[in-house]
Amino acid sequence: MTRRTGRRPGNPDTREAILDAARAAFAERGFDAASIRGIAATAGVDPALVHHYFGSKDQLFLAAMQFPVDPGEVLPTVLAGDRNAIGERLVRAFLGIWDSPAGSAGVALMRSAVSNEWTARLLREFITTQVLRRVLDQLDVDPAELPLRGSLVATQLIGLAMMRHVVRLEPVTSADRETLVAMIGPTIQRYLTGQLPT
Amino acid sequence: MTRRTGRRPGNPDTREAILDAARAAFAERGFDAASIRGIAATAGVDPALVHHYFGSKDQLFLAAMQFPVDPGEVLPTVLAGDRNAIGERLVRAFLGIWDSPAGSAGVALMRSAVSNEWTARLLREFITTQVLRRVLDQLDVDPAELPLRGSLVATQLIGLAMMRHVVRLEPVTSADRETLVAMIGPTIQRYLTGQLPT
Repeated sequence: MTRRTGRRPGNPDTREAILDAARAAFAERGFDAASIRGIAATAGVDPALVHHYFGSKDQLFLAAMQFPVDPGEVLPTVLAGDRNAIGERLVRAFLGIWDSPAGSAGVALMRSAVSNEWTARLLREFITTQVLRRVLDQLDVDPAELPLRGSLVATQLIGLAMMRHVVRLEPVTSADRETLVAMIGPTIQRYLTGQLPT
Repeated sequence: MTRRTGRRPGNPDTREAILDAARAAFAERGFDAASIRGIAATAGVDPALVHHYFGSKDQLFLAAMQFPVDPGEVLPTVLAGDRNAIGERLVRAFLGIWDSPAGSAGVALMRSAVSNEWTARLLREFITTQVLRRVLDQLDVDPAELPLRGSLVATQLIGLAMMRHVVRLEPVTSADRETLVAMIGPTIQRYLTGQLPT
């Protein structure tokens, strides 16, 4: 039995074989070192078919993680405008995604990431390559500082999602979005552009 | 078969029955509403025996969560001294516990809390009653603001533990403690004593 939709071309078995190979490659080798060519070889298909089904390597990664939002579409809004308010805009966009139907995929991803080393690696790669690298590329900071700045941002944002949506600690779970933006935005801003210890 | 140690008095079956009853009571009713009397009744023992085995309700809670550190012993050091550096001292003490052998119990607790609603409730109660309430009692802030301040602190500290010890995102995982204290201390300080949005 085969199934086709406008959005998901191709034989479902072949699609799944490609996604399995992609998850393995991204988790084992990391996003940068994984290649469409290698993933195609593992799945036993032509690389052109992987591009045809999934598009770019970024898009294949999102599909492999079943991630319902493309940071490549969200982040331009965050990065446009006053550079001193990027922290607030990033928190606002982040909360918007978690408060949307996509949030339940996020909860599932967090649950899996803490119990499964493989998913933890995928989450690390996702945070680093799909979100932080794109944000930090836009900021005028020393490239050597980017990894520390990025991972500090991750501690605060993942902790926020964890308390608001997984552990459900009050009053952060029912706090209105702008209260959290006002309190946590400056934290993110400082991690992105503030002075680091020498 | 029975087993006795100097540190753990009593019949192990009775001890376990009390701990099971305590976990159920703390998760279902919360720390404040749970009573030694009720826990003893569920376990079919005299309340005096619960006190004899475990001491105070705080101590029973720590034993029920298998939590290896008593915040009541750590927090006085954090709270003593310059009020404007409580944030830094709290981060330093927190990282010290996670970097110690007790950290592995913390990782297990986090893993359990994200997959199990019951443990999530216990973690919430633990954060609120054993840590945040004690810290915030020492600060001269509006009591109405304590829950929001406390839960903001929890978002940052739990996110830090999650990234450093569970997901293991670099460079935060191998960063030296004082770098993290310098960067995250001011965040905690602002959540504890800074201006909240009106």
